[in-house]
Amino acid sequence: MKVSEIGEFGLITRLAKMAQQAENRDAEAWQQLIIGIGDDAAAWCGNNEIQLATVDSLVQDIHFSLSYTSWRELGWKSIAVNLSDIAAMGGSPRYALVSLGLPGNTEAEDVIALYRGMFDISGRFGVAIIGGDTVSSPVVFVSVTLIGSAGPGNKNMLRRSAAKAGDKIAVTNNLGASAAGLEMLRKGLKFPPKMSKQLRQAHLTPNPRVSEGQLLVEKGVKCGMDVSDGLVGDLAHICMESKVGAQINVDLVPISPAVQACFGERALGLALTGGEDYELLFTAGPPVMNKVKKAIPCPITIIGEITAEKPGKVKLVDSRGKAFNLKKTGWDHFIK
Amino acid sequence: MKVSEIGEFGLITRLAKMAQQAENRDAEAWQQLIIGIGDDAAAWCGNNEIQLATVDSLVQDIHFSLSYTSWRELGWKSIAVNLSDIAAMGGSPRYALVSLGLPGNTEAEDVIALYRGMFDISGRFGVAIIGGDTVSSPVVFVSVTLIGSAGPGNKNMLRRSAAKAGDKIAVTNNLGASAAGLEMLRKGLKFPPKMSKQLRQAHLTPNPRVSEGQLLVEKGVKCGMDVSDGLVGDLAHICMESKVGAQINVDLVPISPAVQACFGERALGLALTGGEDYELLFTAGPPVMNKVKKAIPCPITIIGEITAEKPGKVKLVDSRGKAFNLKKTGWDHFIK
Repeated sequence: MKVSEIGEFGLITRLAKMAQQAENRDAEAWQQLIIGIGDDAAAWCGNNEIQLATVDSLVQDIHFSLSYTSWRELGWKSIAVNLSDIAAMGGSPRYALVSLGLPGNTEAEDVIALYRGMFDISGRFGVAIIGGDTVSSPVVFVSVTLIGSAGPGNKNMLRRSAAKAGDKIAVTNNLGASAAGLEMLRKGLKFPPKMSKQLRQAHLTPNPRVSEGQLLVEKGVKCGMDVSDGLVGDLAHICMESKVGAQINVDLVPISPAVQACFGERALGLALTGGEDYELLFTAGPPVMNKVKKAIPCPITIIGEITAEKPGKVKLVDSRGKAFNLKKTGWDHFIK
Repeated sequence: MKVSEIGEFGLITRLAKMAQQAENRDAEAWQQLIIGIGDDAAAWCGNNEIQLATVDSLVQDIHFSLSYTSWRELGWKSIAVNLSDIAAMGGSPRYALVSLGLPGNTEAEDVIALYRGMFDISGRFGVAIIGGDTVSSPVVFVSVTLIGSAGPGNKNMLRRSAAKAGDKIAVTNNLGASAAGLEMLRKGLKFPPKMSKQLRQAHLTPNPRVSEGQLLVEKGVKCGMDVSDGLVGDLAHICMESKVGAQINVDLVPISPAVQACFGERALGLALTGGEDYELLFTAGPPVMNKVKKAIPCPITIIGEITAEKPGKVKLVDSRGKAFNLKKTGWDHFIK
């Protein structure tokens, strides 16, 4: 059945039922919810923790294509990218509001699948979907607002503006798989099934580093963000906001083994500039960095250092200290 | 200059500057803000009041046309419709996040004008715009999330589910002007300048009833919502959520004098079903209603009564008690 036949209210009724079934009484967000979907606004009990909010939108044929993205994957990803922003503050995600634009000829079953993906990832992270808006639109868009909290003190956050000269720069896990996955999907490239699956998952169903972000804050890290636009561009944001420079040793950058295997010499470029990996990029002095490495179960790699030189700029070198030319990787934004 | 030339980051820089200039140190929302635009998420001090959140999207050629809507008006309205949802809970609006979809050939000046409209209305209501997302899109869409608070106790809210048999039904001010304005704009109808201006304003720059909603709660009203889909349809929502029926005397429904003058015998239909007036529709027992009438400066009109009969249904009668046929007004949704 088409969305235009079932109607906005018919759809809302079905989705509200799904939201009810998703209720998890063990999660704090659900315990404190007073009004969910169905009134003019959602309502929940406030507390004196710092409140966080972020919004991110995915637009059809700009951020995703339905030719290679299932509706369920789209739902997952639309929540994941926002969870990652809360993770990038070191916070706890709690509530999501979903604004959905749909062409009238969208199958109702597809919308249900989209919400399944959203409820799936929301459930895993204790997030309650508490409201939204479904509107008619010539293209599909999903705009998710995520609300979270960050502990009682305002020092318990990862800020882009808190990097200091002498800080080490580190990333969680490894990079490049999402951009490689996108290229594979777009061009229909064929790789061994295991690697193909890994690249697809990296791009379509990323796992935001929520618990890792919280641990970073707990161990004393003050500066961090998530890698959404690509390592070099994102690090440039930290440099600009913190008024510092940065030097990366490209030979230290952890590259996804699947990307290494499937993309060969292009792998480093994908890891440096690819984007959408949703790993955490953070800086801290060596003692804090050591504590972090012991505490966090996922790999942490130090890739460079914050410097006092050239505020706002990111310098790339190799292990011999030689300048590395990013343009060779086919990328020339942000840094000229 | 086109948005595609100035780029996403160039645009964000300009908008962040506008947001800074909009800062109002007298407003509580600004005082409690810790991180505004520019980091992974916005952050503010939490408190133990009930928290409210709502989201509403406007899509080009579905909810507005740029042929008769200025960018500034679009900005105003996109915030106004969300403020109205917070007003409909009796709450205080505090923070807004704006997700904006724009074609690459949009003029940067138009986006600035859009934000001027948003900052204008936000400033009037003490709301801080603290974050957002600007994405490429084949059509313009504006999706606003509004976060507010509703006092410390969870009884201090206007719910759709709180109507009781015997309650009087009332609306603020009068109805029909927004739908009349839309028809005037769409068909290029000509009316005397004063009326034309009034109808245009009603449709494009509505004034949400925030202080009125707060006063309703203060005086003991428990059930209310805003008139966004049209009086009869919206009242049906209250009836469904509250499991009650309702009877409206159509001769009591307050019609905008401009609609009366410009649309003659069609005026009643527009007032009953027009939508987007963003007045408040609420129910309460007669003693509370009397208190409300004395306390609120804008006109309050009692238009009917909540009944125990036919839960979920709205019955329309005239002053002689004769059933009124809504289909005559050209409207046949919701009630068959």
